[in-house]
Amino acid sequence: MGNDVLFETLLRLADNHLILGHRLSEWCGHAPMLEEDLAMPNIALDLIGQSRALYAYAAEIENQGRSEDDLAFLRLEKDYHNILMVERPNGDFGHTMLRQFLFSSFMVLFWERAQNSTDKVLSGIAGKAFKESQYHVRHTAEWIIRLGDGTEESHKRMTAATAALAPYIGELFEADAVDQSAISAGIIPRASDLRGAWETQVRSVYAEATLEPILDHQAQTGGRIGQHTEDMGFLLAQLQYVQRTYPNMTW
Amino acid sequence: MGNDVLFETLLRLADNHLILGHRLSEWCGHAPMLEEDLAMPNIALDLIGQSRALYAYAAEIENQGRSEDDLAFLRLEKDYHNILMVERPNGDFGHTMLRQFLFSSFMVLFWERAQNSTDKVLSGIAGKAFKESQYHVRHTAEWIIRLGDGTEESHKRMTAATAALAPYIGELFEADAVDQSAISAGIIPRASDLRGAWETQVRSVYAEATLEPILDHQAQTGGRIGQHTEDMGFLLAQLQYVQRTYPNMTW
Repeated sequence: MGNDVLFETLLRLADNHLILGHRLSEWCGHAPMLEEDLAMPNIALDLIGQSRALYAYAAEIENQGRSEDDLAFLRLEKDYHNILMVERPNGDFGHTMLRQFLFSSFMVLFWERAQNSTDKVLSGIAGKAFKESQYHVRHTAEWIIRLGDGTEESHKRMTAATAALAPYIGELFEADAVDQSAISAGIIPRASDLRGAWETQVRSVYAEATLEPILDHQAQTGGRIGQHTEDMGFLLAQLQYVQRTYPNMTW
Repeated sequence: MGNDVLFETLLRLADNHLILGHRLSEWCGHAPMLEEDLAMPNIALDLIGQSRALYAYAAEIENQGRSEDDLAFLRLEKDYHNILMVERPNGDFGHTMLRQFLFSSFMVLFWERAQNSTDKVLSGIAGKAFKESQYHVRHTAEWIIRLGDGTEESHKRMTAATAALAPYIGELFEADAVDQSAISAGIIPRASDLRGAWETQVRSVYAEATLEPILDHQAQTGGRIGQHTEDMGFLLAQLQYVQRTYPNMTW
């Protein structure tokens, strides 16, 4: 397995966490209650922290003089290889929570297995991320249940969110040639092997939330090879603004 | 009168037109009907064209090697000196039309008098802009009347728009030391001298639209000295993205 496979594997993981962390941070100061105005940015910080560890390692593997900041802030849209789910606009609070729940429920399984990665740096990152993801699942699952099994209005909104996010689930479990190489080398677990446990977890929370599961529907794909939705450009314009405006800025 | 007064005078005018043109262009592809999907970007192009003439002249007056693109795209937020009204988010179609109507009703009077500017370049810009502004007033006034004197819903929305925009009217008529110098030198007309004719025009359209005029209420100010609303940063992130991402790009 070449370094290019490891680099691309790290980049996809890092991009997922940076972009979702950015989306979540948009709620900062706008959450429906003070407690959530702390909880959501805290989850966002976990995600951005994970992306930072992954970018730093990716930059080291690439060995082209790029820093973690260069990777995070100075690429063009097509060079970001995150899944489409994480770049979707936040929608309402329920939609944001459900997206986080679907993503974190996958990542908790992913990180759990990645602790046994043959790559020792990644296995170290996985250990910390696994613990953080467990909290993300617990926190968001509570909201899915509270809102799904809540008022008529909150149930209606959660039902809409399950339908809106369904097309973006499939991409979580994709594997192309890059993934196959990384899997064969024991770097990352095979995503499709995690699907059973993921569905069991999600169906159980949906059932308690009295929500009809829609787990695979009109699947959208392309993010992992740089084909993004219209919203990605607007997201990057904001994400990159400070670095682009003050080049080579450091703290 | 020093060149710095002329430069600042041109910059404020240019910024008003660039920022409002950018806001209007956000409707491109999203207008409620095809005809408006042409009309709004056409007005936006007029405004951006006016800003371009003003920036080009400002760059020449400044004589520091900055181009019209540098001025338009590469300044920091506090260096944009537009009034707050033009950076306000679009809101609904009626809100966008009312903002344009209030602004263009002022500009038509401004440009009419500025045709007699002692500055020959500005008087040339004014001649073209005067004609364009007349169309902008006519087009938007028709919509104010149609929507204000329309359905219960459209009337309600237009009433909300008149209240939402009222705080941003006062800034149109402000004059600080820079303006006083430019007015004394015969470069630009005195904005407060235009207020009577502006109110007559606006009140007449509001009356036909069955809208209660709110023309001065909890006035907000600061844009002309670089103190902007939160929305300005997000606007600039999008406006500047291409130039910041591809530095020194030309067509």
